[in-house]
Amino acid sequence: MPAALSDRLKSLLDGPVFIVVGTVQPDGSPQLSPVWVKRDGDQVLFSTTVDRRKKKNLDRDPRVSVVVQDPQMPYVYAEIRGTAELSTQGARELIDELSLKYTGKKYAEFNPASAEDADRVIVRITPEKVVGMM
Amino acid sequence: MPAALSDRLKSLLDGPVFIVVGTVQPDGSPQLSPVWVKRDGDQVLFSTTVDRRKKKNLDRDPRVSVVVQDPQMPYVYAEIRGTAELSTQGARELIDELSLKYTGKKYAEFNPASAEDADRVIVRITPEKVVGMM
Repeated sequence: MPAALSDRLKSLLDGPVFIVVGTVQPDGSPQLSPVWVKRDGDQVLFSTTVDRRKKKNLDRDPRVSVVVQDPQMPYVYAEIRGTAELSTQGARELIDELSLKYTGKKYAEFNPASAEDADRVIVRITPEKVVGMM
Repeated sequence: MPAALSDRLKSLLDGPVFIVVGTVQPDGSPQLSPVWVKRDGDQVLFSTTVDRRKKKNLDRDPRVSVVVQDPQMPYVYAEIRGTAELSTQGARELIDELSLKYTGKKYAEFNPASAEDADRVIVRITPEKVVGMM
């Protein structure tokens, strides 16, 4: 059953906060990386590319967890556990939207080397449990 | 085989940076939480209590991953994957040392409610692989 995000958590996700995403490696060990984030209702979206470790991990096991920490009040944080759905439609638009949110620039301008990147994927997380302090 | 930390990563861990720790739940899904950190050579130490989820997960499966992100330059980050060893000796001293590092106060003063906490444990991570940008 989907879990709801608090207003405080929603507000934090709507700002330029980095989240850390955790997936599970083929050998069952944890794999972590920081990403930009967008909120859509109670869902959490981030962008990756088809050749990244986390994308391959999520293809195999869609169970995912993210940590959101308030940069101004680091003792206020939440862990959101849920299930990821991957899609390619709108993936270029999402990375530009995220880049504008975090850097004020389109992604190709912020990161010219990204012209060599593999195709983009949208990861959409439906929260099942929220743990922590907001 | 143990991996070495770069000088930049060591310097960051020596400052009051929060890291995110990832463990694996009994059902194989990821579990994440932010913690204070201390460096000892190339090893990474944090403190938890015997009743916390991550401690129970590490008892069962010591494979652990942490993300360290430079608060001043968030595109500079590292993921450190390794194996955790848990011990209780010196655990009270470590939480006070960490509390002084991050808050300037002894832990009981910073968090009076901690008088009710379960016993403390030291988690010592030996890095096996460092991924990322430092």
